[in-house]
Amino acid sequence: MAPQLDGFFKQVDDLSDHFIERLRKAVAIPSISADEERRPDVVRMGQFLADELKALGAEVEQRPLGPQPGKEHLELPPVVIARYGNDKKKRTILVYGHYDVQPAGKEDGWATEPFELTVDDKGRMYGRGSTDDKGPVLGWLNAIEAHQKAGVDFPVNLLMCFEGMEEYGSEGLDDFINAEAKKYFADADAVCISDNYWLGTEKPCLTYGLRGCSYYSVEISGPGQDLHSGVFGGTAQEPMTDLVRVLGSLVDTNGKIQIPGLAELVAPLTEEEQSLYGNIAFTMDNLYESLGSQTSIHPDKEKTLMARWRYPSLSVHGIEGAFSQPGAKTVIPAKVIGKFSIRTVPNMEPEDVDRLVFKYVDEQFKKLGSKNTINTTLQHAGKWWVASPKHWNFTAAGKAVERVWGVKPDLTREGGSIPVTLTFEQATGKNVLLLPMGSSTDAAHSINEKLDKRNYIEGIKLLGAYLHYVAEEEMIN
Amino acid sequence: MAPQLDGFFKQVDDLSDHFIERLRKAVAIPSISADEERRPDVVRMGQFLADELKALGAEVEQRPLGPQPGKEHLELPPVVIARYGNDKKKRTILVYGHYDVQPAGKEDGWATEPFELTVDDKGRMYGRGSTDDKGPVLGWLNAIEAHQKAGVDFPVNLLMCFEGMEEYGSEGLDDFINAEAKKYFADADAVCISDNYWLGTEKPCLTYGLRGCSYYSVEISGPGQDLHSGVFGGTAQEPMTDLVRVLGSLVDTNGKIQIPGLAELVAPLTEEEQSLYGNIAFTMDNLYESLGSQTSIHPDKEKTLMARWRYPSLSVHGIEGAFSQPGAKTVIPAKVIGKFSIRTVPNMEPEDVDRLVFKYVDEQFKKLGSKNTINTTLQHAGKWWVASPKHWNFTAAGKAVERVWGVKPDLTREGGSIPVTLTFEQATGKNVLLLPMGSSTDAAHSINEKLDKRNYIEGIKLLGAYLHYVAEEEMIN
Repeated sequence: MAPQLDGFFKQVDDLSDHFIERLRKAVAIPSISADEERRPDVVRMGQFLADELKALGAEVEQRPLGPQPGKEHLELPPVVIARYGNDKKKRTILVYGHYDVQPAGKEDGWATEPFELTVDDKGRMYGRGSTDDKGPVLGWLNAIEAHQKAGVDFPVNLLMCFEGMEEYGSEGLDDFINAEAKKYFADADAVCISDNYWLGTEKPCLTYGLRGCSYYSVEISGPGQDLHSGVFGGTAQEPMTDLVRVLGSLVDTNGKIQIPGLAELVAPLTEEEQSLYGNIAFTMDNLYESLGSQTSIHPDKEKTLMARWRYPSLSVHGIEGAFSQPGAKTVIPAKVIGKFSIRTVPNMEPEDVDRLVFKYVDEQFKKLGSKNTINTTLQHAGKWWVASPKHWNFTAAGKAVERVWGVKPDLTREGGSIPVTLTFEQATGKNVLLLPMGSSTDAAHSINEKLDKRNYIEGIKLLGAYLHYVAEEEMIN
Repeated sequence: MAPQLDGFFKQVDDLSDHFIERLRKAVAIPSISADEERRPDVVRMGQFLADELKALGAEVEQRPLGPQPGKEHLELPPVVIARYGNDKKKRTILVYGHYDVQPAGKEDGWATEPFELTVDDKGRMYGRGSTDDKGPVLGWLNAIEAHQKAGVDFPVNLLMCFEGMEEYGSEGLDDFINAEAKKYFADADAVCISDNYWLGTEKPCLTYGLRGCSYYSVEISGPGQDLHSGVFGGTAQEPMTDLVRVLGSLVDTNGKIQIPGLAELVAPLTEEEQSLYGNIAFTMDNLYESLGSQTSIHPDKEKTLMARWRYPSLSVHGIEGAFSQPGAKTVIPAKVIGKFSIRTVPNMEPEDVDRLVFKYVDEQFKKLGSKNTINTTLQHAGKWWVASPKHWNFTAAGKAVERVWGVKPDLTREGGSIPVTLTFEQATGKNVLLLPMGSSTDAAHSINEKLDKRNYIEGIKLLGAYLHYVAEEEMIN
């Protein structure tokens, strides 16, 4: 039976100016987690959220995470956790978001003041954090308020977890989630995260997969100090010569990874999965526009989406220790550190990837016959995540999208990683859904970040509707 | 007939404290040409030299070079030119040196104040500019003074050219030398430059060759802006992938340049030349000590010296535009610029080198089948220089070394370049000799630069003795 949502929807429309005001207040707090001097603003933003939640009748706690690792004089901002509703007959949904933002300054090239929400005549609401992630976080609060004012019973118990360090590596959060999984979060039936984006600008999506990332350093060293190429060129084996050869052996121009055994770790493509890509709202022109060029590897949309979502890729990011300035310097660097990473996908186990990478890099180096010393290390690894889009958490969200937007959502994956997703899945053992509010042009992390008014207001309806469908959806795990 | 030098030599010994005081005064002036704020000190140092020269009876001029290119608010420091003696029956020797110095600060790790000459109990005189190049420049002035006080006739007419921008690319000097070659410098019979170093610490040398340097940039670009490797990895052709492959194709670990045709440009090794290397005072341990490692290409001294002096080498210096900081950043750089240079030797014409390099790099890039764009450019080229060590300028210097130091000097070349050398040779058409005063451990350009008291005092004798032998040497061009 389709839930009765008209009253709620109308209330959201009636409260839209109020909801935009709430977003304006949130954007005005420059809660930049990467900037030590802004730490009080991050804390203030957490307090703002806690106050708003309390006013809505939620039980709220601000949990300290202790001093910031490596900067022990700084306290990490608290995690704001809240519960709205405690009815044993209802399902309980755990939602996550973050209240910190990326750095921003007018001097970076913003057209407007980044911490003043500025709405243009097309309804684009510019401001740091508008789409990442203050808009979606407030979406949950707005949905609660609209239910209250419309006199509609809230369909689920809502558990909330809002952190203040997401843009700085979510310091301390994994431990917190693991510790609370069987305590504060114990009765969660599913998890929903609204912190990513539509693939394009017109069609909503549900996201069920993320690639992982294994990041490596290859350090090659020889001489005791940097050398002058006039004096030593031709007499010393140069670490940089070795390094560009090793880095050049990793991947070819068309993205084919040269490391034997890696491709065999990848889950085979089924016909069912292959059939999904053709219907996704995405074109090669979308790719060219976001690339700013036509230097793509694949000629068609299907291959491009598969390359982004379900196949691994290897990128060489740069070299530390070599000459990197403009101009000309005749240095032979004594120690150079190449950086590359592999985006990983099912079923690549990070340890298997490490083993194959180390073996291959060592073999390539040995081939050079160099007297220099190599040291390859894993800098960090985050595992890929894939959920079942057949779970009731997804089917409910799909119905909510259809109800609000009038279209079936695309089922998408993402090429990047949102590590907290996997943490929630592993800690709670529950299905996790990524339910984006914003669109591909929102410029999160960039200048002129914005959230379209349409995406914000309809997004509030979507989050509420999702909870109604969740309440009614039959249990399919 | 051997010149009578005992009176001069004794006078140098008697004046040694006075000469060290003169060096102390010069070192105390922080004439750092790279530091805008020190420009008045550079000018003050030029004035100091001019005053000292006038006091010795030389005709002195300070020639302005105009505003500094790219920093037009700054006047270049003047070239101090001087003439001592104008006897048509005598030979005229043109000497060059520079009165500016490299930057230095106690905070860089100096054990003493860099601009206070500090003499230790082993006679090592520490101070910025002591060996590079204030000691040698004052050597000429000291030689004049010792002749005067000993009542010994000065054996030649001495033309002097001392610049104040050598450590910043000798801005403006080439034009000046070319303009004065047939004017102020018109009657020079030969040129002598004391601005390099012995190969080791115990045996003097005369230097008759320098390698050239052709410095290249390879820019590869594709996307319109830097990309996130999660979102675009596997779908975009990455400029960095192409660049490490191109750079990796240039040279192997043992220094073998892979560019076809380049080796054929190198002058063949004659038996006569080959026989010279065995006697040079140099050991593999000297190399290992200066490398700070045993990561040498060649197993023996002869091959090492030939590789440094008479064969080309190729060094990859670094990459501009890629991630070069510590840590991990998952960027796909949109535009990367690889830097490499080739040390060139006789008979490599720079234009031929360019042609072969451009052709090879283009071919390597074409092989990749990339849609990215490549742009290879020559950043700068300085040609190699080789003089005839059989010229009277060299044979006179050889006799002077034997007289002062009791050994025949090594005839050496250098792997690096001193561009003014070739400028003087081409502008005047005369033989140029490099006659070093300091030794290999003097740490020019580094912290704790020093000149041994022995090298300074015996070096003054050497410069004077050289002029006496020059006056008597039969003309062999």
